[in-house]
Amino acid sequence: MNTHSINLRVRYAETDQMGVVYYSNYLVWFEIARTEFLREKGLDYNRIEKERKIYLPVTEAYCRYRAPLKYDDQFTIVTKLKDVENSRMTFEYDVRKGDRTVTTGYTRHAFINEKGKPIPIPEDIKEILTSDE
Amino acid sequence: MNTHSINLRVRYAETDQMGVVYYSNYLVWFEIARTEFLREKGLDYNRIEKERKIYLPVTEAYCRYRAPLKYDDQFTIVTKLKDVENSRMTFEYDVRKGDRTVTTGYTRHAFINEKGKPIPIPEDIKEILTSDE
Amino acid sequence: MNTHSINLRVRYAETDQMGVVYYSNYLVWFEIARTEFLREKGLDYNRIEKERKIYLPVTEAYCRYRAPLKYDDQFTIVTKLKDVENSRMTFEYDVRKGDRTVTTGYTRHAFINEKGKPIPIPEDIKEILTSDE
Amino acid sequence: MNTHSINLRVRYAETDQMGVVYYSNYLVWFEIARTEFLREKGLDYNRIEKERKIYLPVTEAYCRYRAPLKYDDQFTIVTKLKDVENSRMTFEYDVRKGDRTVTTGYTRHAFINEKGKPIPIPEDIKEILTSDE
Repeated sequence: MNTHSINLRVRYAETDQMGVVYYSNYLVWFEIARTEFLREKGLDYNRIEKERKIYLPVTEAYCRYRAPLKYDDQFTIVTKLKDVENSRMTFEYDVRKGDRTVTTGYTRHAFINEKGKPIPIPEDIKEILTSDE
Repeated sequence: MNTHSINLRVRYAETDQMGVVYYSNYLVWFEIARTEFLREKGLDYNRIEKERKIYLPVTEAYCRYRAPLKYDDQFTIVTKLKDVENSRMTFEYDVRKGDRTVTTGYTRHAFINEKGKPIPIPEDIKEILTSDE
Repeated sequence: MNTHSINLRVRYAETDQMGVVYYSNYLVWFEIARTEFLREKGLDYNRIEKERKIYLPVTEAYCRYRAPLKYDDQFTIVTKLKDVENSRMTFEYDVRKGDRTVTTGYTRHAFINEKGKPIPIPEDIKEILTSDE
Repeated sequence: MNTHSINLRVRYAETDQMGVVYYSNYLVWFEIARTEFLREKGLDYNRIEKERKIYLPVTEAYCRYRAPLKYDDQFTIVTKLKDVENSRMTFEYDVRKGDRTVTTGYTRHAFINEKGKPIPIPEDIKEILTSDE
């Protein structure tokens, strides 16, 4: 079970004067998508930050915009955990309106501690991330 | 010298599909305007937070939208410190395009400590805020 | 039936370095709340704009921040249509976390046409807005 | 003269609870950087949209985050026009704080008309873009 879907709707605030979604908002949605991915896995990102003082900043982000989304559009983001390395992981995103992919992208994340230093992914988290359930 | 002006330009990201600035962005600009007001007075808000652990959250915000601003418009915000009370203060804002006021508003702020408790405005800060220079 | 509730969750992007929701985001949420209010009434704001070229820009917005919301918090916005005048209307919002009101506010809206001129609220829309069902 | 620099300062609204700039804001800054690049070349993007009904939507965006920026940081974005193809162009961005590159990225853009159809870059625009002055 290494994919997860969420459904969202375009907010008015997310449009621009071209009449479509402004391009940076996809990164905001990716964040929501991966948070819900983790939550479904049993990992509460908020508690990871608060209780374990572990942070997952984005080290790379990429978006390929194929077709625009418009105000009030309902859409789905399918999130896939692509790679889990020693101290990094990569998510892939597929933004779909109906049957059609409108945008794809990925984000890479480091695991860091409170001082901003990279750390190996803790074993318990790694196990959950790489389990197929 | 209890007013201060800054000049800004409308970002594409700040527009919406109505072709004008989305209404919440004025609050973002008000924050920039009061920060620069304080900086000109000699108060660095960033250092107040970091070094003194004093925070100035907004307790009330109001905007009156008279005319829209559009993409790439250059505009001025005139900020006035209206009231300095025991543990609160109020800023007024006048957003102008050329000679014309397009939006007005105000924000009220509490002074709080790291635990979120209201505190009296420290004397040295109060003195700077209420000085006329 | 002149109130409506929606449930939302705080996005990471909506927080600031004070560790709470940045104050302008409440206006973004108010927009979602009133859109869903209208949708439940049978009014699709997107179609009002697209098909009838009628726009409802905000002329005033007010927020009273009582307690902060934090990342990942789930909250409810209760929206009430307060006044329907000749060419304006006012919404009131109550942002609740659990049983507690954390923020209140209102927005006033004009009805305008494609040229930005105020127009009387069309009768069919007025009827729907003022009906109790 | 195919590079251009702008200076910006981090807004409070652009921070998140990690105490650093939220990652999607870099794309907003890239938009400002390329607009000013074009303006210096003599191309007013606002007029290109309004008068010629030509739009330059982003088709790809990439960011590599090396070090964080924090609230109130002053930084520079150096923009370079990398490629001008038949109907596309690519900008590269180098976000610097002092002498240090903190983030790099690129955006690719299509030229489209009012109907959203790709068009060849108009000759006069192409000439300006590819001139070395």
